[in-house]
Amino acid sequence: MTFLGAAAPAHPAAAIVGVPYDNSSTFRRGSALAPQAIRWASQSIETYSPVLRRDLDTLPFADHGDLDLGGLSPEAMVEAVRSRVAGFDRSTLPVLLGGEHTLTLGAVRALQDHHGDLAVLQLDAHTDLRDEYEGRRLSHATVMRRISEVIPLQQIVALGIRAGTRDEFALAERYRAATPTLAVTSQLWTWLQEHPVYVTIDIDAVDPRDAPGTGNPEPDGLSAGTLLTFVRRLGDLRVVGLDLVEVSPPYDPSGRTAVLAAVILREALLALRGT
Amino acid sequence: MTFLGAAAPAHPAAAIVGVPYDNSSTFRRGSALAPQAIRWASQSIETYSPVLRRDLDTLPFADHGDLDLGGLSPEAMVEAVRSRVAGFDRSTLPVLLGGEHTLTLGAVRALQDHHGDLAVLQLDAHTDLRDEYEGRRLSHATVMRRISEVIPLQQIVALGIRAGTRDEFALAERYRAATPTLAVTSQLWTWLQEHPVYVTIDIDAVDPRDAPGTGNPEPDGLSAGTLLTFVRRLGDLRVVGLDLVEVSPPYDPSGRTAVLAAVILREALLALRGT
Amino acid sequence: MTFLGAAAPAHPAAAIVGVPYDNSSTFRRGSALAPQAIRWASQSIETYSPVLRRDLDTLPFADHGDLDLGGLSPEAMVEAVRSRVAGFDRSTLPVLLGGEHTLTLGAVRALQDHHGDLAVLQLDAHTDLRDEYEGRRLSHATVMRRISEVIPLQQIVALGIRAGTRDEFALAERYRAATPTLAVTSQLWTWLQEHPVYVTIDIDAVDPRDAPGTGNPEPDGLSAGTLLTFVRRLGDLRVVGLDLVEVSPPYDPSGRTAVLAAVILREALLALRGT
Amino acid sequence: MTFLGAAAPAHPAAAIVGVPYDNSSTFRRGSALAPQAIRWASQSIETYSPVLRRDLDTLPFADHGDLDLGGLSPEAMVEAVRSRVAGFDRSTLPVLLGGEHTLTLGAVRALQDHHGDLAVLQLDAHTDLRDEYEGRRLSHATVMRRISEVIPLQQIVALGIRAGTRDEFALAERYRAATPTLAVTSQLWTWLQEHPVYVTIDIDAVDPRDAPGTGNPEPDGLSAGTLLTFVRRLGDLRVVGLDLVEVSPPYDPSGRTAVLAAVILREALLALRGT
Amino acid sequence: MTFLGAAAPAHPAAAIVGVPYDNSSTFRRGSALAPQAIRWASQSIETYSPVLRRDLDTLPFADHGDLDLGGLSPEAMVEAVRSRVAGFDRSTLPVLLGGEHTLTLGAVRALQDHHGDLAVLQLDAHTDLRDEYEGRRLSHATVMRRISEVIPLQQIVALGIRAGTRDEFALAERYRAATPTLAVTSQLWTWLQEHPVYVTIDIDAVDPRDAPGTGNPEPDGLSAGTLLTFVRRLGDLRVVGLDLVEVSPPYDPSGRTAVLAAVILREALLALRGT
Amino acid sequence: MTFLGAAAPAHPAAAIVGVPYDNSSTFRRGSALAPQAIRWASQSIETYSPVLRRDLDTLPFADHGDLDLGGLSPEAMVEAVRSRVAGFDRSTLPVLLGGEHTLTLGAVRALQDHHGDLAVLQLDAHTDLRDEYEGRRLSHATVMRRISEVIPLQQIVALGIRAGTRDEFALAERYRAATPTLAVTSQLWTWLQEHPVYVTIDIDAVDPRDAPGTGNPEPDGLSAGTLLTFVRRLGDLRVVGLDLVEVSPPYDPSGRTAVLAAVILREALLALRGT
Repeated sequence: MTFLGAAAPAHPAAAIVGVPYDNSSTFRRGSALAPQAIRWASQSIETYSPVLRRDLDTLPFADHGDLDLGGLSPEAMVEAVRSRVAGFDRSTLPVLLGGEHTLTLGAVRALQDHHGDLAVLQLDAHTDLRDEYEGRRLSHATVMRRISEVIPLQQIVALGIRAGTRDEFALAERYRAATPTLAVTSQLWTWLQEHPVYVTIDIDAVDPRDAPGTGNPEPDGLSAGTLLTFVRRLGDLRVVGLDLVEVSPPYDPSGRTAVLAAVILREALLALRGT
Repeated sequence: MTFLGAAAPAHPAAAIVGVPYDNSSTFRRGSALAPQAIRWASQSIETYSPVLRRDLDTLPFADHGDLDLGGLSPEAMVEAVRSRVAGFDRSTLPVLLGGEHTLTLGAVRALQDHHGDLAVLQLDAHTDLRDEYEGRRLSHATVMRRISEVIPLQQIVALGIRAGTRDEFALAERYRAATPTLAVTSQLWTWLQEHPVYVTIDIDAVDPRDAPGTGNPEPDGLSAGTLLTFVRRLGDLRVVGLDLVEVSPPYDPSGRTAVLAAVILREALLALRGT
Repeated sequence: MTFLGAAAPAHPAAAIVGVPYDNSSTFRRGSALAPQAIRWASQSIETYSPVLRRDLDTLPFADHGDLDLGGLSPEAMVEAVRSRVAGFDRSTLPVLLGGEHTLTLGAVRALQDHHGDLAVLQLDAHTDLRDEYEGRRLSHATVMRRISEVIPLQQIVALGIRAGTRDEFALAERYRAATPTLAVTSQLWTWLQEHPVYVTIDIDAVDPRDAPGTGNPEPDGLSAGTLLTFVRRLGDLRVVGLDLVEVSPPYDPSGRTAVLAAVILREALLALRGT
Repeated sequence: MTFLGAAAPAHPAAAIVGVPYDNSSTFRRGSALAPQAIRWASQSIETYSPVLRRDLDTLPFADHGDLDLGGLSPEAMVEAVRSRVAGFDRSTLPVLLGGEHTLTLGAVRALQDHHGDLAVLQLDAHTDLRDEYEGRRLSHATVMRRISEVIPLQQIVALGIRAGTRDEFALAERYRAATPTLAVTSQLWTWLQEHPVYVTIDIDAVDPRDAPGTGNPEPDGLSAGTLLTFVRRLGDLRVVGLDLVEVSPPYDPSGRTAVLAAVILREALLALRGT
Repeated sequence: MTFLGAAAPAHPAAAIVGVPYDNSSTFRRGSALAPQAIRWASQSIETYSPVLRRDLDTLPFADHGDLDLGGLSPEAMVEAVRSRVAGFDRSTLPVLLGGEHTLTLGAVRALQDHHGDLAVLQLDAHTDLRDEYEGRRLSHATVMRRISEVIPLQQIVALGIRAGTRDEFALAERYRAATPTLAVTSQLWTWLQEHPVYVTIDIDAVDPRDAPGTGNPEPDGLSAGTLLTFVRRLGDLRVVGLDLVEVSPPYDPSGRTAVLAAVILREALLALRGT
Repeated sequence: MTFLGAAAPAHPAAAIVGVPYDNSSTFRRGSALAPQAIRWASQSIETYSPVLRRDLDTLPFADHGDLDLGGLSPEAMVEAVRSRVAGFDRSTLPVLLGGEHTLTLGAVRALQDHHGDLAVLQLDAHTDLRDEYEGRRLSHATVMRRISEVIPLQQIVALGIRAGTRDEFALAERYRAATPTLAVTSQLWTWLQEHPVYVTIDIDAVDPRDAPGTGNPEPDGLSAGTLLTFVRRLGDLRVVGLDLVEVSPPYDPSGRTAVLAAVILREALLALRGT
């Protein structure tokens, strides 16, 4: 089972890698099941996007299956992600399918080595800026704090943010931008266009009405349609990596969160590499 | 159990018939359970519409229960629907409660015999225009293709459409109209007013946030409120038949998809035949 | 959709009638959805019983669909059942598919008219012998009390009983027999063989492990296998009517309660009328 | 487990009391489980509101646990609520966590004794104005009728209303205001500011897409965001009591209804008593 | 809402206290919701036990609601339990309703002060004998290890045990007894009769078929009936305290785990204090 | 994520391969999600078997992740399985984790090449002996028929069988053995010991009470404990391959089917290759 029937082209324009990992403990688990659930859900959608008028059947992309993360600590999982992303040819867009948000640190570390001025564009309900959470320095709740130790705060743009502690919000004010919506000023968009961008999408950026299958649902989020419109605009940026994290299938018996994730991925692939 | 306590008037203005059938194989099944689930859900809503200011308790309508479709092939089921619809007195509005979308072909065949210039108004997420699907020429995924062989493409209006193959979208361009929204030009509305209209509502036209209980949820659809507003306007047209299909109760433990279906039916009955 | 693809023979040996009714209020509802859910589940089982070595494809039985019970009071529903059962030819075995247990009163009334010495064989977790429940004299919790006013207590045999008030158990001691198991003395079996028997099966007689989809699950009940073995022995009795009640699909996302109900019905039909 | 880690201050500015009661029978039950489910869900959200820029960690509020309502009739439960609310110091805002809507009558009775010109601000999908429901004069479906016998109809403002019988809507026209939206004229807002106000929030005022876990979901309701915005404005009024009722956890496996309820409570506490 | 309508007698023979706490992180959470879910489920069962032929309506027992555990660490929660149990009059049997298993340590500490030769009778699928789990010394997975530091290993009897590490099983061999079944030698039963006994029932001792709603389901466990039979025999021992832990309602949409817990409690109360 | 933290030894005694495939259409789908769900569930169990007194931590076994089956037909999937199994060193036991039952054909074909007298030991509720199903010759319902064309009927032993058509049962009578239980005569056991054996376990052999998460639940099956006892005896045979198929996670919100599958696999690995 591959995403949307991905074949295995010799020189893929993009490559999907699953990261089935949810070991850092918290309210509710299950995101380790997301990569397979999203691939399965992709069987119910089309390869064609009527909005972009592009079709995945003409895009050479690969689905490399899941990383083997058996029994790894969060630190080791992050290193496994870093290593895998570092191994990709630069003409191939790495697309990581979580799993918990922690994986983003690995991808940013890998890309930071090649792109000195890397920007991180985070779509998320939560700041994820704690210094420590339940006794751990590396978890889904601290991942952006750790990333902020790798790249400057001014290189981070966080959209969809609507939950966090007072301290986290104080720190987020030092970002390039942090806002609960996806409204981006033209100045900010221009800035983004001038940098290589890593995009990390926590599905809880989307409102729980559209994405109930997630570990920490937070009300009053982005609509699926708004997020999709934004994703379709990503082709205007120089995106060098992408992840989609925190889908948790057990909390959504309707299965629509995984379907939405599959559509987001399709639109992202078509916007970033389609023709 | 009848829909909203329907009695059995001698000369009903409208008559509900259940079509509990979901045999054509696909991603997820369950729509055969919809007619009873919608009748059951109707017990939790009122007969009165505060928007239309009309009450079903003054409308003589019937609920004739479900068709007996035991062991029938899709073709035989379609014929059973055709035969039943053909048997209604022309003063009675046939209202079909699916079941899978395939049933629409039977209703259109029956009404086409009486209305040479019949228009079909489809509310749906998917084009349903494949020529064949999983080896079958007659299924929920091909029903509009089969209908397009019965009436001219120019007699079809498809609203809410947001998923299909490239080929299906190419064919839909030859419709009178095809659009992802319910926005209808006044020119198109006038054209509809000049024809007898059969209305088919696939519940997946509605966004999965409002109708999670369906077989192929497709994100970024119509809101329930938008659909209800549209349905209330149907009284301006000469509607000669109506169906509501593809509700699949097992995927919605909250039961709200069936409740929504019951409200859509109530508003449709009141808009089309109420006073 | 009919039960196991039932055709419509001219002179059926048995006839299924659905009674989709659950209006008498209590802990949890949903049994009105059972008739259709059981028919749907029957699509996943075979017509052949490898234990009885009989096949429904050689038995002329009918599925007459559901009674039309829109808006009826419990009393009127019971009367509708009585009337329908009374209308059957005596060569046809009436098989009622609930719906709530209250319907049994209607069937017993109808059959009592023809069989002066009618015995009632109840398989149930609960005595259902209250005189009144939540202000009503006619409900699922009082149905056996009402029946005990129609036929003598000595004509009732209750098996599987494991819950009730102290008063109800005191009254049940005046039955021909009342026991938590299906162990029947040969003396009792002989007595049953000497009478026309109406069999009522409340699915909660079965342990919730095997039948979780019911309104009032009571632990430590009969296994599905034990019940099936008992049902297969019913061919030794002169059974004049049968019902299966209180399946409530919403509480069983696995769907196995409806599958079990379908198998019970198949085995009962084959045991009672098969060859 | 207390709401958002509430401590037990000597002089709380607000005090939460759970009312785990759902005995008046109807379509679907479960709201008795809401107080604990909402407290549990509160563990997944922050104490800080980034919109109000206030933090519960600086507000002395209490969570007094649940009322002991074992085996009480609706009337006795209402009296228990009245008594508890009457016992609070007037500097403490009573916040009741249902449970079924019926409890509001108790709170209004208690506050009416102290505030002769009390206004009731109801956020709800249903009018709840029946005179009797299923044979009872006191239930979730009649609670506003009973309240209208305690305070004048002109002291009631009902927002979000979109379901009821024709008679109920006729009666609601005699309210100070009744509307399906939260749009309040400045004249009405001024009137509210001039009165002590009791606010009762039935979670079904919110659209089922955002609050699927409720007994009587009614489509086309308020968005969670709209309700939260309204709640944040309540600080402009002189609110003397508040309740949040009819969350029913069993119908929402995603758990997001309880999370939303927790956020509503946090915003209400911060808006009404925070600094 | 109290358990089975418990009143508040002056001198209760037994007293229920809820411990809604599940903070120690692990595979799946939710046991904090159990006390209310079990009380709610108790509304669907009778106060009478037809096996014991005793009725709770003649037993003066109390339900003191839930402990207030807001924001407490596991250590502080254990201390709160200890303190509460220590406060009971010795004529009152303390009955704790978890919540996670960790609470047992508090109860044992309290009773150990009064009963120097206290025996602990554990019914559980897991040994719970780790020295540390996910970095914590006090959690549901270590609770018996901590208890073994309070009372001698020879004072512990563990039944139903079928999962643990090799090291845990090695340690359990030093218990008075440890076995996967409930089969107790007469010698062991005599030994138990000679000691004051604290009984702790982890619901996962029961097979997941009968108790699916728990955090760590382990196959091939005790049947509900076997456990109930054992519980009914507890009247032969001098039981000085009892708890029932680890019911996790979110994983059981059928609700039967909470119903079973309610029946276990009823039978225990009747066996230990009923007449 | 690997099964029970499998490392990647150079010369594994056993190797797990996931086959996430469920394309052949039928009643209910979802088994493609099983491999990941079983790996995830394995995180909640121990590596140690207290019955076998063996520990997986001393067994060098591998988890090779999932086969890449994107867009393959059933025939191509079967070939991919055959090829993979054929590629294993003969000292490595292949363990296939379905996915739908169809995959067994591939494994049998591969092993048949090396083991001329291969026996197939099938644990299953259904005969799977149809010649064609829904128009396909290769599906979960025909897999044993196809296998019976590869190896002689006399080389097949089918246990747990309790459902099929009359024709399928007639054909199964020509097996070495076919029975609804796991009771094996000593003669048959000796015969099995004299042959290389491929074991295929369809999880629906187990009763739905223990394994509700499957596509075609059939009542009155094997208990989990009985199956585990049988699996532990497999060490007496010369097993050359093993699969576990038809777990369907979406139908089991309790997750216990996947936990059971993980325990079956652990016991099988320990019985067949552990020390």
